[in-house]
Amino acid sequence: MPIQAISWSPSGAVRIIDQRALPDAEITRDLESAESVADAIKQLQVRGAPLIGIAAAMGLVTALREERGAARDDFLERMREIAKLLADSRPTAVNLGWALARMQRAADGTPGEGSALWERLHGEATSIWEEDRAMCRRIGEHGLTLLSDGANVLTHCNTGALATGGIGTALAPVYLAHEQGRKVHVFVDETRPLLQGSRLTAWELMHAGIPCTLITDAAAATLMRQAKVDVVLVGADRICANGDFANKIGTYGLAVLARHHGVPLYCAAPWSTVDTTLAEGDLIPIEHRAASEVTSLAGRPIAPQGVAALNAAFDVTPARYVTGFITDRGILQPPFAPGA
Amino acid sequence: MPIQAISWSPSGAVRIIDQRALPDAEITRDLESAESVADAIKQLQVRGAPLIGIAAAMGLVTALREERGAARDDFLERMREIAKLLADSRPTAVNLGWALARMQRAADGTPGEGSALWERLHGEATSIWEEDRAMCRRIGEHGLTLLSDGANVLTHCNTGALATGGIGTALAPVYLAHEQGRKVHVFVDETRPLLQGSRLTAWELMHAGIPCTLITDAAAATLMRQAKVDVVLVGADRICANGDFANKIGTYGLAVLARHHGVPLYCAAPWSTVDTTLAEGDLIPIEHRAASEVTSLAGRPIAPQGVAALNAAFDVTPARYVTGFITDRGILQPPFAPGA
Repeated sequence: MPIQAISWSPSGAVRIIDQRALPDAEITRDLESAESVADAIKQLQVRGAPLIGIAAAMGLVTALREERGAARDDFLERMREIAKLLADSRPTAVNLGWALARMQRAADGTPGEGSALWERLHGEATSIWEEDRAMCRRIGEHGLTLLSDGANVLTHCNTGALATGGIGTALAPVYLAHEQGRKVHVFVDETRPLLQGSRLTAWELMHAGIPCTLITDAAAATLMRQAKVDVVLVGADRICANGDFANKIGTYGLAVLARHHGVPLYCAAPWSTVDTTLAEGDLIPIEHRAASEVTSLAGRPIAPQGVAALNAAFDVTPARYVTGFITDRGILQPPFAPGA
Repeated sequence: MPIQAISWSPSGAVRIIDQRALPDAEITRDLESAESVADAIKQLQVRGAPLIGIAAAMGLVTALREERGAARDDFLERMREIAKLLADSRPTAVNLGWALARMQRAADGTPGEGSALWERLHGEATSIWEEDRAMCRRIGEHGLTLLSDGANVLTHCNTGALATGGIGTALAPVYLAHEQGRKVHVFVDETRPLLQGSRLTAWELMHAGIPCTLITDAAAATLMRQAKVDVVLVGADRICANGDFANKIGTYGLAVLARHHGVPLYCAAPWSTVDTTLAEGDLIPIEHRAASEVTSLAGRPIAPQGVAALNAAFDVTPARYVTGFITDRGILQPPFAPGA
């Protein structure tokens, strides 16, 4: 069974699995305030583009519990403050802003005072989560057509149950193939610096009983040369109108290697990841994280003190390297038009 | 100043810097027996294709100190036993077998008893080391022509002073450029799983005052796409007659990426790395090391317990991806003929 990455706590807090602690420990945290949700997103306790959108929407509801007695205008003003705090927690994924904008529209379109607005927002956040679960499943169904029995999939970072409210994006076809009794095996890039592949993807695949093999990021090229990879499945944090997309650093290199070796590469993401306001990939804001994520591991230095290091969290893959985009609306080709 | 990776101790032991301890600690070890030299090679306390050749030759001399009183035949028999022990310590690099075969020829060609043979071997090992220092410098001089003022070099693994008896192979041109006052900057791939880039290359470049920036292995592709890399310089553990070569896992991927982005890639190695007995790269024996090197770091697990992992230490890069081979005999193109 895939793991469940997010839910409501009995007190109405956002309940998450602390993904920084995996695979050493399975720690559940109840996030009771907007600040704690924003911190959890910043510190990658909760991560994955779809999941941080859900977490932000749910966090907004959790933080507004105390404002249910407020008048409409006061409630909406407080909502805007909290939404800004949450929106600023990470810059690259489009889902965060998308979920918060949807919550704002829901509030704006609902008559009444704080209490009525809050009820509407609670319903909207739950809908975002439930729709994400359904979207994951649809992505899985569309992607399933690409996985023959015995397929060897290569994936990067974590795009599974721990990245979404459901069974994942790029891993959704894998989960469905396994559910249907097809043989499928996943090569998991460890995904330095934060090792989402070894810590999270390998963990959730093993948890679900799906065969997988961990590799260092630099080992993928030779596996392709040896024809051991049938398909590369990756996620996306933001997809532009022209089909360029941002995803975990290393995705672009995989895309070039896949092209070079004639291996199909699919980008799997919910339609909400498409940002038609951006014409092309080089306009996507790329998050640069602390050099210490590269120069140390689990608090232990692994490089000389004072060494300079680059740590762009994402890279941009031009659309021409992508065989297709597996979305909840089918396997699509760019360009993408608003609402299309 | 480049660091000195190997020398004789006053007692005639092989004195090394324990490269497993870098960059946390600079530990010097005196290896007093063939077993301790073989273990140091196996455990990568001493590593780098040229350096393990030198260490094996010196280790043979150290181990035979006790046999100087032996008769010729007894001395030669003991020598063969020790050489086999050393030769079996790592399979991929050709230099190890090359250095030991040269020591064997020196002994065979020297008249007299144990004492005379040992003196000859001591001289021969010292020659191998000194010739390596000179070879490094010649590689540097040939490669220097490829580095314009302000050049940005990308390198993988460690091919510097810590990999050789001198100033390195792929880093030798960098050291000489710096010595001559040219501006040069090195992007250092961290080189998972054993982090020879972050632990060793960054350390020795900083030690020598050469500007460098550490990156994760998966970040190299985007740097090339952004035109931030002028040239890729890598080493080799074995070069075949047709120019295919084995080097640290990840080299092949870099070579494909360099080709795709129009960035020249040079393989730098002493001529002794060329193994004309092997026609092509897929004949090179590839060392597979313990999965625990991938699933843990510094003894700490970074992946779920029991996960399967691949850990090929090397990959093979076909000759067609190589712009040229920087050797002590000049910048060469394959095919390579014996003794050519």
